[in-house]
Amino acid sequence: MIHTLQVTSEKFAYDVVTGRGGWRALRRFPLATYSSVFVLSEKPLWKRWGSTYLRESDLDQARTQARTVLVPSGEGSKAMGMVEVVATQLLKGGADRRSLLIVFGGGVVGDLGGFVASTYMRGIDYVQVPTTVVGQVDSAVGGKTAVNVGAMKNLVGTFYPPRLVVAEPLVLSSLSGRAFRSGLYEVVKHAILAGDPFFGQLEKSLDSLHPQNTRLLEPMLASAVAVKVGVVNRDEREAGLRLVLNLGHTFGHAFEEATGYSRFLHGEAVGWGLLTATRLAERLRLLAPDEGERIARLVRRVGPLPPIRDLPPAKVLKLLPQDKKAIGGKIRWVLPERVGKVKVVADVPVKEVAAALKTVSDK
Amino acid sequence: MIHTLQVTSEKFAYDVVTGRGGWRALRRFPLATYSSVFVLSEKPLWKRWGSTYLRESDLDQARTQARTVLVPSGEGSKAMGMVEVVATQLLKGGADRRSLLIVFGGGVVGDLGGFVASTYMRGIDYVQVPTTVVGQVDSAVGGKTAVNVGAMKNLVGTFYPPRLVVAEPLVLSSLSGRAFRSGLYEVVKHAILAGDPFFGQLEKSLDSLHPQNTRLLEPMLASAVAVKVGVVNRDEREAGLRLVLNLGHTFGHAFEEATGYSRFLHGEAVGWGLLTATRLAERLRLLAPDEGERIARLVRRVGPLPPIRDLPPAKVLKLLPQDKKAIGGKIRWVLPERVGKVKVVADVPVKEVAAALKTVSDK
Repeated sequence: MIHTLQVTSEKFAYDVVTGRGGWRALRRFPLATYSSVFVLSEKPLWKRWGSTYLRESDLDQARTQARTVLVPSGEGSKAMGMVEVVATQLLKGGADRRSLLIVFGGGVVGDLGGFVASTYMRGIDYVQVPTTVVGQVDSAVGGKTAVNVGAMKNLVGTFYPPRLVVAEPLVLSSLSGRAFRSGLYEVVKHAILAGDPFFGQLEKSLDSLHPQNTRLLEPMLASAVAVKVGVVNRDEREAGLRLVLNLGHTFGHAFEEATGYSRFLHGEAVGWGLLTATRLAERLRLLAPDEGERIARLVRRVGPLPPIRDLPPAKVLKLLPQDKKAIGGKIRWVLPERVGKVKVVADVPVKEVAAALKTVSDK
Repeated sequence: MIHTLQVTSEKFAYDVVTGRGGWRALRRFPLATYSSVFVLSEKPLWKRWGSTYLRESDLDQARTQARTVLVPSGEGSKAMGMVEVVATQLLKGGADRRSLLIVFGGGVVGDLGGFVASTYMRGIDYVQVPTTVVGQVDSAVGGKTAVNVGAMKNLVGTFYPPRLVVAEPLVLSSLSGRAFRSGLYEVVKHAILAGDPFFGQLEKSLDSLHPQNTRLLEPMLASAVAVKVGVVNRDEREAGLRLVLNLGHTFGHAFEEATGYSRFLHGEAVGWGLLTATRLAERLRLLAPDEGERIARLVRRVGPLPPIRDLPPAKVLKLLPQDKKAIGGKIRWVLPERVGKVKVVADVPVKEVAAALKTVSDK
C-alpha cells in the first residue's frame, strides 16, 4: 500500500512516498532533465540492496548509468572530511550543477548526503532514500542536513529540501533487531505528538512489529511520517512549531554525548529522553500521572535500553545547555501535557530537571 | 559620500552601503536583537583596522562585547578544516542560532565567513565588511559563499545572503599597490558590463586611482558595486543573467589553476581572462575590432600582469571545462559584443578558443 504525502517547502513541493514498492516512485521522477545521476550510499548496505534498488527504481534502465559513491558505515562518515571526499568523487565523476544525487542510506548517509547536495557547487538536487526506521519516519523528511564537528553533533548543516523522499519498508528487513527497535522510539515520539488513534494503534501492534514484518509496519510508518510531514509543512525552518519534534532529544543528546556516542543507538538515547521528559513534565504538573504512565509504558515496551544509572548526573546536566535549540543559553524544553499534546517551556528550574533525571536513572 | 543600494534577496532585502563613513551603517543595524555578536577576521588586517572598525561601528559601545575569531591570511584559510576551526570557536564562545557574525576581511575571509554563517547551526545572520576592492565591488554582494576542496576552488558553498554589506574605502588604503590594482580588473569588468558613462569615466580616472586616494575611488567603487547589485537583483541564484559576471573568469580560473594559484592574484588572472575573452569575441565576429581594442586598452592600463607566455596552451585549455558554470561539460562563454553588452555563447569551437589564447599569450 503506497502512501504519498506532499511537503510544501519554501521553494517547491515534494512527495514523500512510503510503503512496499515505494522505490518505484523514481520511475515517475524527471530523471532525464538531469545531466547525470549519482548514488551516495554506504558499503555493506549498497552491497545488500543496491541491485534491488536499481531494478525497482528503473535506474538500471536509465539513459546514462548512475555512478555510485560509497562511504564507510558509521557516524565517523558524518564529518567535514567526508564532505570533501564525496565532493571530490562527484567532481571526478563529472557531476555538475545539473546533476542529481540519490542519497541511499540511514541517518549518517542521509545527513551527509543532504549536506553535500546542499553545498556541492552551491547546491544540486537530491532524492532521499532512507533505509532505517528513523530515516523513514523522521530525518529524511524536512531538508535538515548536517555533519558533526569534533564532539558536537550536527554543528554545521543546512536547510535544503530534497526533490523526493521514497521510504520502502522492505529495506528494513535487513536491520538488526536492536537497530530496528531503536527507530521505534522515534515512532513512539511521533505517536506522543499525534495522540490517538495513532498512539492507541501503536499500543496494540507494538509487540508484533518486527523488521521482517513489513506489511504490519507499513501503516505505522505511514502514520509516523505523516506527523513529521505535518509539522514540517507548518514550520520548515524551525521558527517554532518544528521544535516539538525535539521531544526527548534534549536529554537524548546529553545521554549520547555523556557516553561518547558509544553506548546508545540514537533512538535508544531518545527513548531515555522521552522517559525523562515525561517525568519532568509530571514534576512540573504539566502532565497527569496516569497520562505520564501511559507514555512511559509504551516507551518501555519497545525493548531493553542500555543503562544510564552509572552516568554522573552532573555530567549529563552540564551537557544540556549546549543543545542547538538553546537560545541565549536557555533550554527550551519540549514536554508532554498529555498523549497528543506537548508544550515548549523555558525557565525550567535546574533542580526539577535534576530530580527528573534522578527518578528515571534510579529505576 | 555614502551610497546605499538595496539587494532584494529571495527572503529579505538588505542594504549595500558604500563610501567614506560606511562602517557607521552598523549603528542603525538592530544589533540588540541578537544574542551575541562575533567578528571573523584575519590577523594582520584586524590588528591594523580592528580598533577603528569597532569605534566607527559603535561595536565598542555595544551591550555585550563582540568576540573576535581570527584566521590566518591567505587562500589556505578557505578550507573545510577552517570551517571546523571557526565553528568550534563560535561554539566555545557561546554562539547560538540567534548570534550575529560580522565578516571583516577580503575574499578569503568573506567566502569562508559567509559559508560558516550559512551552515553554523544550519544558518545564522551575518554582515559583510569587505576590505579589498574585489570584495567591495563584487564578492561581498549577492550571498555566494564557498570554500575550496583540494585543488578545486569554490567546489563547496552556498547561496546565503548577508543582512548588510558595508564597504568603507578607507580600509583600502593599507592595500599594497599590486593587491589594489588586482581589484581594479574587476572594476573594469563591471565597466565593460555597464558600458558608458561608467566605462568612459573609468578611462578618464584610471591613472589617478590609488589605494590612498579614497575620495577619487568612492564614485568608481559605487558605480562598480551598482553593476553587481543590479545583476543580483535580477538573478540571485545564477539561473541565467548572473552568469554575465563570469566575464573573464572562465579563462581566469584556468590561468590561476595552471599556475597552482601562486603566480596571479585573482584579479590579475581575470585581467588576462578579459583580454582572452575579448580576442575570442573578435574571432567569432561578435565584437568589432575597435570596440575590442577599447576594452583591451583599458585592461592593459590597469598595470603590469605576470606573464602567461610560458604556460602550455594545452594545459590551460584542459583546465577550462571544469569550470563550475559548465553544464553537461559544455562551457558557456561570456563574451563582449560591445562596451556595455555581453552575450552568453555555448558551442564555441575549441580551435577558436585556442587561437584566442595564442593571440593573447604571444603579445
